Amino acid sequence: MKNKYISVGLIGYGLVGKGVVRNLEENKKIALRKISKPIRIKSICDLRPIDKPKLYVKNFMDIVEDPEIDLIVELVGGYEPARTIIIESLKAGKNVVTANKAVLAKYWDQIFTAAQDYQKLVYYEASVGGVIPVVQGLSEGLACEDILEIKGILNGTTNFILSEMTKHGVTYEAALKSAQIAGFAEADPSFDVNGIDTANKLAILSSLAWGGWIKVEDISIEGIANLDIEDVLITQGFGYDVKLIGSAQKTKDGIDLSVQPCLVNKDHAFATVKNEYNAVMITGKDAGDVLFYGKGAGQRPASSAVVSDIINLSKFIVTNTAGIVPNVVYDKEKKIKVLPSGKSKAPYYLRFEVLDKPDVLSKILWILGKCKVSIANLEQLGVSSNGYTRIIILTHETYRENLEKALKQINATRSIIKSKTVKIKVELQSNNSLTLINSKLLKTLFTK
Amino acid sequence: MKNKYISVGLIGYGLVGKGVVRNLEENKKIALRKISKPIRIKSICDLRPIDKPKLYVKNFMDIVEDPEIDLIVELVGGYEPARTIIIESLKAGKNVVTANKAVLAKYWDQIFTAAQDYQKLVYYEASVGGVIPVVQGLSEGLACEDILEIKGILNGTTNFILSEMTKHGVTYEAALKSAQIAGFAEADPSFDVNGIDTANKLAILSSLAWGGWIKVEDISIEGIANLDIEDVLITQGFGYDVKLIGSAQKTKDGIDLSVQPCLVNKDHAFATVKNEYNAVMITGKDAGDVLFYGKGAGQRPASSAVVSDIINLSKFIVTNTAGIVPNVVYDKEKKIKVLPSGKSKAPYYLRFEVLDKPDVLSKILWILGKCKVSIANLEQLGVSSNGYTRIIILTHETYRENLEKALKQINATRSIIKSKTVKIKVELQSNNSLTLINSKLLKTLFTK
Repeated sequence: MKNKYISVGLIGYGLVGKGVVRNLEENKKIALRKISKPIRIKSICDLRPIDKPKLYVKNFMDIVEDPEIDLIVELVGGYEPARTIIIESLKAGKNVVTANKAVLAKYWDQIFTAAQDYQKLVYYEASVGGVIPVVQGLSEGLACEDILEIKGILNGTTNFILSEMTKHGVTYEAALKSAQIAGFAEADPSFDVNGIDTANKLAILSSLAWGGWIKVEDISIEGIANLDIEDVLITQGFGYDVKLIGSAQKTKDGIDLSVQPCLVNKDHAFATVKNEYNAVMITGKDAGDVLFYGKGAGQRPASSAVVSDIINLSKFIVTNTAGIVPNVVYDKEKKIKVLPSGKSKAPYYLRFEVLDKPDVLSKILWILGKCKVSIANLEQLGVSSNGYTRIIILTHETYRENLEKALKQINATRSIIKSKTVKIKVELQSNNSLTLINSKLLKTLFTK
Repeated sequence: MKNKYISVGLIGYGLVGKGVVRNLEENKKIALRKISKPIRIKSICDLRPIDKPKLYVKNFMDIVEDPEIDLIVELVGGYEPARTIIIESLKAGKNVVTANKAVLAKYWDQIFTAAQDYQKLVYYEASVGGVIPVVQGLSEGLACEDILEIKGILNGTTNFILSEMTKHGVTYEAALKSAQIAGFAEADPSFDVNGIDTANKLAILSSLAWGGWIKVEDISIEGIANLDIEDVLITQGFGYDVKLIGSAQKTKDGIDLSVQPCLVNKDHAFATVKNEYNAVMITGKDAGDVLFYGKGAGQRPASSAVVSDIINLSKFIVTNTAGIVPNVVYDKEKKIKVLPSGKSKAPYYLRFEVLDKPDVLSKILWILGKCKVSIANLEQLGVSSNGYTRIIILTHETYRENLEKALKQINATRSIIKSKTVKIKVELQSNNSLTLINSKLLKTLFTK
């Protein structure tokens, strides 16, 4: 049997697992055209019995150790037993396809060391950006590039929520509810909305781009749950959309890694990325900007990416060469320098809600100036619903630590009585600058 | 020597050839990290002697037949001797990397039959979309997809010209001159501006997507040289940008293939594709829309794509398995049905310049109606500089043959004395419709 087919063992039979079985069945002819041998699902393991009793296997080790199986698809999710399944499969001489970003980000070192030790492949296209072939685009499409920057909208749930807030002017809570109804947010959405999922994906892309292991702990992470609809509306007036961006930038002092809500110019391609769509912009020294865009969530797109991996990995299986040349070159010895988050430089949007007293503004400006935060643009807006006056500031590029120091001082200054201090990073289009800010539009927005 | 290195023979040492040598040199460490063996350029062939006399070879056959060479990079361009170089290299047991879209589109059949016969690989990422890894994205990223549609801005020269026209409101001729000065149009730009280059690339992507051979002759081709700046300005008022789009759509009656200037909604990601950038949108049944975007022209991006191919192909060379599983599955027997261009369906923008006589409009409408061209929107504009009145019509989706019949009749009707008839296809965003057209904006534009 082993030589007539590529035999697949599927572990985890949820939405994506079912999609993989259906997709392979529906596109059998396309698969056969690409690989000389047919692909068959030999066994499926899940906690509960499934609708295909003949294929059902209760214990995943029975699949891992089945000598007839060439390739194991891990769709369990989470850390364990996913890690064990992947490592034991490699030990048993199997190749692995996984969609599990959490286990990859946490055990990158273990997984790709094992892959190299046992000369097998681990493919994981579906783990980042859903159907978007960005893992391959980065590792093969830009195979010989000095990667300068990776920026991405990498989480469908948060992008859906932000799209709702922007489109309908509703609060985070209301938008989350819509996302749950539409099936794009889970009952407990914390991993998505607190930025962890985006950070997992950013860690994967960064490790791949720079050939070492960049950990989730190396990334400064801020989610969207505290985002105020007022800031979404105000910044729209400036010509920006708010997006949750995972960003990795090569600087001379290390890789600058962050996940945070950012303002994106409406002219930028990222502003057209709506709802459950994802996008990744990779900048190479020779390539310049390369953008990938597609559905980041949903059963069909996710299972399509898993099936692509199965096909592409099978090319090596039929020639008996899977893993001789590793797909992920992980160098245990290579230490990648990470920039301390305080040294990260960017312009920021700031909003202060303060009592309308004559010297408050000058005090804020004095503290900002003292902390070397330079101001590009300032608007003092009308009184908000809670009776405070609103000061909007756009800074020039500033060190995060300077800004944080300034905000801490401002918040601690008793004579500046305030209800709120907000900061949001501004992502600029390469050929754009803050002087383009449409303060006319802003005025229109607040004089009505 | 053969086993210590991957030995490359480079044929054609122009801008891109020089870029390849430089890029391989600059990124030697990255290349070595990915492939266990170093890559060396063993020989370079060009018509004239080059700046690396030790590597210079006068006759390309000396490279093709050199037993030490593993991989030949064809950067000659055009049909011959490019075709001979590729075919003879395959016969001699060499793998090939090429950036030559013209030779691929014209000799797809010959080239990939030879590749299969001699079990070698032909990689050609740089032939379509410059640095964008869309060939790989289509064939591997979407490995097991039923491809429904491919749409692309595939030519940097024309996109630069259209961007200039849109941005500065200048004529085609003036914009072409700017493109030539900026280095994005050749002295003889005809292959670019008449749409042939886009058609070559569309033929390649379509052949790849549907596994047969789609020829340039199967594509209905219209360039941008006749585009009137007036239509660019008028359609901007409707909320559209003009882009030269190569389009391949699967319909139940065959693949609908065209290259033509199209109106793209400003909300669509394609509208953000400016200057020398390219973009390709691929729609799969399961994947949905997947977009790839990046630089379509320029030495560094083009050579980056060639070098990626060298790296990716080398993975198979080091394991001695290049070509056992073909990268392009070309089935000689597979006949792909092509939709006759008259059966292509789309909405159109029409502009008539006619004498301001009472019955002219009704005659035009009567002919359109008789030919089953249904109207979505109509504006009669002020008198143009040549004393004619302008009628702007947006049609509903219509068969191209019906529209062409109607326009022929209108142009042949003596009592409708006119100076001009213009038609431009309208590309809609999936969730958009003609009723969204901003006729208020249009009115503003023409009442001033």
